[in-house]
Amino acid sequence: MSNKLVGACIIGQSGGPTAVINASAYGVIRTALDTPEITNVYGAAHGIKGVLADQLYDMSKEDAAELELLLNTPSSELGSCRYKIADPDKDDTDYQRILEIFKKYNVRYFFYNGGNDSMDTCDKVSRFMAKSGWDCRVMGVPKTIDNDLFGTDHCPGFASAAKYIATSCAEVYKDARVYDTGMITIIEIMGRHAGWLAASAALAGVVGCGPDLIYLPETDFDMDKFLADVTAIYNKSGKCIVAVSEGIHYADGSFVSEAKTSATDGFGHAQLGGLAAHLAAVVKEKTGAKVRGIELSLLQRCGAHLASKTDIEEAFMAGKVAVESAVSGITGKMVGFKCSRDGGKYTCEPELLNLTDVANYEKKVPLEWITPEQNYVTQDFIDYALPLIQGEPERKLENGLPRFARLNKVLAK
Amino acid sequence: MSNKLVGACIIGQSGGPTAVINASAYGVIRTALDTPEITNVYGAAHGIKGVLADQLYDMSKEDAAELELLLNTPSSELGSCRYKIADPDKDDTDYQRILEIFKKYNVRYFFYNGGNDSMDTCDKVSRFMAKSGWDCRVMGVPKTIDNDLFGTDHCPGFASAAKYIATSCAEVYKDARVYDTGMITIIEIMGRHAGWLAASAALAGVVGCGPDLIYLPETDFDMDKFLADVTAIYNKSGKCIVAVSEGIHYADGSFVSEAKTSATDGFGHAQLGGLAAHLAAVVKEKTGAKVRGIELSLLQRCGAHLASKTDIEEAFMAGKVAVESAVSGITGKMVGFKCSRDGGKYTCEPELLNLTDVANYEKKVPLEWITPEQNYVTQDFIDYALPLIQGEPERKLENGLPRFARLNKVLAK
Repeated sequence: MSNKLVGACIIGQSGGPTAVINASAYGVIRTALDTPEITNVYGAAHGIKGVLADQLYDMSKEDAAELELLLNTPSSELGSCRYKIADPDKDDTDYQRILEIFKKYNVRYFFYNGGNDSMDTCDKVSRFMAKSGWDCRVMGVPKTIDNDLFGTDHCPGFASAAKYIATSCAEVYKDARVYDTGMITIIEIMGRHAGWLAASAALAGVVGCGPDLIYLPETDFDMDKFLADVTAIYNKSGKCIVAVSEGIHYADGSFVSEAKTSATDGFGHAQLGGLAAHLAAVVKEKTGAKVRGIELSLLQRCGAHLASKTDIEEAFMAGKVAVESAVSGITGKMVGFKCSRDGGKYTCEPELLNLTDVANYEKKVPLEWITPEQNYVTQDFIDYALPLIQGEPERKLENGLPRFARLNKVLAK
Repeated sequence: MSNKLVGACIIGQSGGPTAVINASAYGVIRTALDTPEITNVYGAAHGIKGVLADQLYDMSKEDAAELELLLNTPSSELGSCRYKIADPDKDDTDYQRILEIFKKYNVRYFFYNGGNDSMDTCDKVSRFMAKSGWDCRVMGVPKTIDNDLFGTDHCPGFASAAKYIATSCAEVYKDARVYDTGMITIIEIMGRHAGWLAASAALAGVVGCGPDLIYLPETDFDMDKFLADVTAIYNKSGKCIVAVSEGIHYADGSFVSEAKTSATDGFGHAQLGGLAAHLAAVVKEKTGAKVRGIELSLLQRCGAHLASKTDIEEAFMAGKVAVESAVSGITGKMVGFKCSRDGGKYTCEPELLNLTDVANYEKKVPLEWITPEQNYVTQDFIDYALPLIQGEPERKLENGLPRFARLNKVLAK
């Protein structure tokens, strides 16, 4: 068979972790270990930095049962990086080094597991290898809680974060209604440029525990309008729960969270902490109400105990399909998802996208899915996101606590 | 039978909510509904305030299946309050009103579900009724995530919060190790005067993902020593995770977080919060490291999705035993727990404690369970707390989200 290419593979992880990025890595590793054409399976320590540093873990030295625990282990187990690789036309030092390592280990397959920037790295490596004449197939395996990758219905990692956010919002909704006194709660959710995660708070509305207001970075934030929105709801019901994306910004593009440094808490003390604390201070000053700011922080991206089973399965599938596609002769692609929700039935199929098309674009929440008042999302968003958060993870526990994968991480030769 | 007392009962909830306070309320309500001597079961809206305001829900109007969902519903479903009842010897207005309501509804059983302050209310009502000659049996049903009730092995609510904290700490541990760059993480945990919850972060160590340092309010906090502790670990490993109780204080008694706000809650306690951000700023200035402050905030007390099954069952049992004991003729007691951990086998039996003994005492973490360096807890704490967090809740879900109880809340007459 003309497409047959025998050699080692490298899997690397890059960018911020998610609850299921390790499920994708496991999809790659498990499939690669079971593929005859792939002679060795290496995990790069801290992504492309591990390749450059010749720090490769030999995945054949891992216990199969421990590897399987990657399905429910948050974080990037191989280690991640935020290394911006140079433009090869300007400086090909890194690429020459990568080629050297690829030749040293006879690497014929390279899988890179990450978001926008990682797909850019992946694309550059792919194009350099093609130019250099080293026969190596390069595939992108998507992840990002931000859900902002272009061309795919959604990204592995988003759904689990969305499920964590919606569940936490529902629980906070209950807690915030305990007293018969007034209470305003502001929940800060990740998402610098795209509001998919903050929008996910609306899913809690499906069980009657949604926030009252949601603000996304897709539209300009207006503090006066925000205060009017909050005050109107608070005056009516004595309660108000607001979900805000960390990336909300004023019309001039400046982040609302950046303005916080000059704010005080009403007692003259500089406000510490993030956007939620800042908005809480502003709302408190305006309304006199009891206001609590809650930042979901890292918890929303590492909350593997609340991962979506659908997300875990799709994340694994993305890794598996990447290996199968590469072995069949494909290169320079990212595994995306093509989904259907027709008639309330959700299906998800892999779809290969050109890395060049995916890299460096950011997919935002469509403006038509944001209400005209720009303070909530429409049913279209709910219909889009709800199928993704279905199913509970089958976690291994030890003493009532999560038992994560414990890898040996034996360095290759 | 001489002890037989026929009449209505009231169940009220008071103080901060927990993940399982509704399981206790369900224990009272379900048992009372099934008890022939109890003619009517009323839920007081917002605790003693609902009694004073004649706002009582008729629990017989609720669907049995919805009531059962209380086992997994966070918050205080009947509504809570932070109402400080007067000393009856100084001002008996409230008590005369309570007596009036008790007579109106022929209330012969009063169950109060709360923490320290609530047991004080319960005790005062009990003593007033005894003095007034109105035959009414009064029982306390404990709850508090703080675990600071005197005389009982532990309090319902603590274990679920502890499980949430330990699980979240384990997940953050994984997340904080993703990059090969330095990172210090400070996790702020509830607990004003008792450090049981912050200590629970140590349980994550059982699965190898515990924090490096833990600071409790049982000892005086020394900023210089804290900075030295953090720096030493950070310099060695490049990572450091610290769990701090919100109530840590300097030797002069002032809270480390005190400068943040001068607001107080209804009982006159200083409102705390923002400590993690404060410490993160101090550590960042000292070390130059990347530092992240995470406040678990309300999430830790409403995280019913991570409740301990053991806690749910014990919370229910406390409510059930309160009703059974009262019907058998007992009054003026709180249902506590007497537990054994001999030979690694955990057992928990109810034990009735005098309300007078329980009210207004705070049980703290024993000093001998804190390491000599005052920056961690000993194995004794692990042995104590680990059995309590066992078992996963059997939650009802709807569309992948928690389906909480939806009560009709029909006001009596």
